[in-house]
Amino acid sequence: MRSPVAERVKPIEAAVAALRRGEPVLLYDADGREEETDLVVASEHASPQVIRLLREAAGGLICTTVAPEHHRKLGLPFLADLVADGAKSHPVLKHLMANDLKYDPSKSSFGITVNLRTTYTGIPDVDRSATIRALARFLGSIGAVRDSDAQKDFGRLFRSPGHCILLNAAEGGLASRQGHTELSLELARLSGLVPSTTICEMLDGKTGKALGKKAAQDYAARNGLVFLTGRDVTEAWQTRVAVQPSAPVPA
Amino acid sequence: MRSPVAERVKPIEAAVAALRRGEPVLLYDADGREEETDLVVASEHASPQVIRLLREAAGGLICTTVAPEHHRKLGLPFLADLVADGAKSHPVLKHLMANDLKYDPSKSSFGITVNLRTTYTGIPDVDRSATIRALARFLGSIGAVRDSDAQKDFGRLFRSPGHCILLNAAEGGLASRQGHTELSLELARLSGLVPSTTICEMLDGKTGKALGKKAAQDYAARNGLVFLTGRDVTEAWQTRVAVQPSAPVPA
Repeated sequence: MRSPVAERVKPIEAAVAALRRGEPVLLYDADGREEETDLVVASEHASPQVIRLLREAAGGLICTTVAPEHHRKLGLPFLADLVADGAKSHPVLKHLMANDLKYDPSKSSFGITVNLRTTYTGIPDVDRSATIRALARFLGSIGAVRDSDAQKDFGRLFRSPGHCILLNAAEGGLASRQGHTELSLELARLSGLVPSTTICEMLDGKTGKALGKKAAQDYAARNGLVFLTGRDVTEAWQTRVAVQPSAPVPA
Repeated sequence: MRSPVAERVKPIEAAVAALRRGEPVLLYDADGREEETDLVVASEHASPQVIRLLREAAGGLICTTVAPEHHRKLGLPFLADLVADGAKSHPVLKHLMANDLKYDPSKSSFGITVNLRTTYTGIPDVDRSATIRALARFLGSIGAVRDSDAQKDFGRLFRSPGHCILLNAAEGGLASRQGHTELSLELARLSGLVPSTTICEMLDGKTGKALGKKAAQDYAARNGLVFLTGRDVTEAWQTRVAVQPSAPVPA
């Protein structure tokens, strides 16, 4: 039986509050899509303890999302583009094209991989945390910087390849793709945080498959965490889009 | 106090026996290098249970090694090469060059990422296991195949980008680089298995750092697993090289 309090707080509101506090939330995309639940945190709050939680409680690939305005400004390619470009020098790559994704007609979100240059190997929790938090700080700071300067600064801070996997959100965000990348980014925007999330697929060690929706909901309940679906996010996004139309320029 | 039995079996011999049985071994590179211990399994034995063990007991990035003769035959690039090639279309990439690795003067081993085309999202344990075991079977089968045919077959089986991260061993193997990639590959060769290993860095959740050498040795002892060092592997490799000189062609 739901408590009266639980009935008053919508999942989207609880998720926003949790992300602002630096806590993870569970985000299920949709029936008929990947049908996976990702553990999601705001990248600016990705402490070493959070990285540990992602790898221990989720178990998939820990990836960090980059908003369209940021990967566009920085000129960061999708990995699929690098693979396609590389086919000129490496013919095998043209045979490997990922043109058969079952859950999404568009390309995967995978971008390049990075390490903060001051990290050592890049993989321990303290290293991945340092890379991801520095990335969030950097992305939150480049709004007014010239593109070419932002790109140089990015290269001063980070190297590639590295151990932190970037996911480039689709141009148009949720209007064009409703994957964990775009959904979690919109969640960060709704929270008023730097639009970058760090996400990891929840796996089921017993079955070897993705953690089922019900099991993910149970995990959230057991651990006092918020579980929400892609629909919760798209509804809030649509409302926001509706209440924030392109304002007419005052005369 | 060591038991008489333990004294008789050298770590390298115990490791070979374990890998042949499909068990993981712990491989520490060297003081003064990464100083990390990787959990190592033969790729041909990477069952879903093994993938789960790697992510739960190790915690780093699960990566699969590709021998020099195989990535050469298939024309598989290093990721660093794709990043360098991509800099023509994406200028930011030239700023991101990984020319400052502290533990190794050469480039990182990162190669491309792949999924078996028959997997769905690619990340659950059953998917990563299917990709990695299919890769091992494939690599073990291409010795007599024409390069261009092997490349086409590779693309029929796998797509890129994916969730399984390839590590390309350095040309010359242990003679030119002594990272976990080359060390574990040599271990697979010494075991008479397909030369491909799947490896994952052991992390320490408490400190947020790489698991220390002593703690890794304790973990191995507690779990009845073999712990060995890069030196154990290079010594066995040198002995093998010494006892197997290029045989003179019989007259």
